[in-house]
Amino acid sequence: MQTLSQISQSFGNYITKQTFEKEPIALYEPITYILSLGGKRIRPILSVAAYQLFADRVEEVYPVAFTVELFHNFTLMHDDIMDDAPLRRGKATVHTKYNVNTGILSGDAMLILAYEYLTSVSADIKTVTKLIKVFNKVALEVCEGQQFDINFEKINKVTISEYLRMIELKTAVLLAAALEMGAIVANASESDTENIYEFGRNIGIAFQLQDDILDTYGDSATFGKKVGGDIAQNKKTYLYLKSLELLSETDAQQLFDCYNTSDIAEKEKIEKVKTLFDKAQIRSHAETLQQEYYEKAMSHLNAIPVAEELKQPLYQIASELMIRKV
Amino acid sequence: MQTLSQISQSFGNYITKQTFEKEPIALYEPITYILSLGGKRIRPILSVAAYQLFADRVEEVYPVAFTVELFHNFTLMHDDIMDDAPLRRGKATVHTKYNVNTGILSGDAMLILAYEYLTSVSADIKTVTKLIKVFNKVALEVCEGQQFDINFEKINKVTISEYLRMIELKTAVLLAAALEMGAIVANASESDTENIYEFGRNIGIAFQLQDDILDTYGDSATFGKKVGGDIAQNKKTYLYLKSLELLSETDAQQLFDCYNTSDIAEKEKIEKVKTLFDKAQIRSHAETLQQEYYEKAMSHLNAIPVAEELKQPLYQIASELMIRKV
Repeated sequence: MQTLSQISQSFGNYITKQTFEKEPIALYEPITYILSLGGKRIRPILSVAAYQLFADRVEEVYPVAFTVELFHNFTLMHDDIMDDAPLRRGKATVHTKYNVNTGILSGDAMLILAYEYLTSVSADIKTVTKLIKVFNKVALEVCEGQQFDINFEKINKVTISEYLRMIELKTAVLLAAALEMGAIVANASESDTENIYEFGRNIGIAFQLQDDILDTYGDSATFGKKVGGDIAQNKKTYLYLKSLELLSETDAQQLFDCYNTSDIAEKEKIEKVKTLFDKAQIRSHAETLQQEYYEKAMSHLNAIPVAEELKQPLYQIASELMIRKV
Repeated sequence: MQTLSQISQSFGNYITKQTFEKEPIALYEPITYILSLGGKRIRPILSVAAYQLFADRVEEVYPVAFTVELFHNFTLMHDDIMDDAPLRRGKATVHTKYNVNTGILSGDAMLILAYEYLTSVSADIKTVTKLIKVFNKVALEVCEGQQFDINFEKINKVTISEYLRMIELKTAVLLAAALEMGAIVANASESDTENIYEFGRNIGIAFQLQDDILDTYGDSATFGKKVGGDIAQNKKTYLYLKSLELLSETDAQQLFDCYNTSDIAEKEKIEKVKTLFDKAQIRSHAETLQQEYYEKAMSHLNAIPVAEELKQPLYQIASELMIRKV
């Protein structure tokens, strides 16, 4: 059995061996570039860690794990265009370093490559069919999540449950599917596969809530993205929606106005919104909700009847996700 | 056996039954919209017609034929953004009717849906594996073709063979793969599958040359795109590259200058380039080359040992492609 750092290292070695040095360079180079930005490779590591609960030839799951990483980076490439984001992990985004057309097209190629890896897995037909079905479903759901996210920027009224469903689609289901696909490659039982999926879905929502918290309260030196970006873009996060509920009518109106007038400078707007967030003690509220999802996630992991030792890497990822600063 | 118009009608019925009326509407509506713009559905019809050469349960091939149509429309949606094209078949392009982000995201969803249909085909594992392999390959090739097309706009020196390779990737291989996949679903032999692919590849290059000719010499009332668009965008088509070869040094220099200076109004530029094209008698040269590819295509179709009657729909499509006005 591999520890988390062993998984990370072995899979890291595997990734560096996957090269995309083909013509036309302008199409493939941005793929190498975005993959080189690194990050913690949380999703593929989840696939490997989930696989390890039920089987022990970890190399078997690598193509599927890499499918998830390619897909995730494809969504980053396209989302960064849509969000007009200049930075990703402290480096220029693809469409900033190259141009928008490159970002669109290289992203498309990454999505196709994701399917190429997925269908290169050595497994029986039943397993491959299951994997494709799960991947098709999650890929569409992630697009749906991104669309809801875009929609929410334009409408005034978003409920907290609509918001939670959006982050579930945009973020959580991919973590869940990464785990599920790892379990499928390992021929896990249906109930184990369901539990590992639910572990991922709940930890994913907790993770996104953490991301929302960091976007406002993170340290700009380590966060890798612009702090206050969500506020600047009028993103109706849990922090915003719940503050509207918690604040007095006057304060809530002020918060609403900050998001709905353009005659306030960005820096001033971020400061003003933060003050109102603090007044609502929103950080603590968000952290409480995050904790609830975290505990639900853990209960699903606990329900899987395998040796505790095998679950260590998953416990560790889950806890790191909850205390991460970047 | 179905005639071409029967294929077109039956498959048309199948398409109208495929609905994408799901939430979020902003994601799925543009898919319905672009599919509703119609067109001749050449690619899926090719899949069905190729299938019919070797088997006769046409419904069997529909999901694969629709995969190709979805993929083709996905590329249109994204290419129209990259080319900043306002019109598609005389109607507003998706990013014009909606916005660029919608065009990116709905396009992504279409690519995923294409895989969903592809993997929903009822066939044995060997067949499904072959189909996925062909589709992965062609999907990447089409991206490569689009990237070469973009590259060629920015560099001065493009050879005719580089241009022909680009249109092969961007256009011809998808027609070829549409046919190949139809043959695969019908369990055709390897040599028949190869011949049908080569028929498509050659007819595809002829088709793209026709498109280039129409872009300059088409009738704006029926062409559905802006006539002269290639010239306005400095597209180094066969017409341009071959004219440079054929014209006198002075005229060639003038043509080169038209493509490389920005201080000439678009309308004037199109007129001037057309005059130089005419001087090189480029239309006739392009039509001769087109005819060569057409004949090569036919020789591959002839090499397939099935009843002539079964090939009628393919002969008909091929000849319609060569005389089409839109």
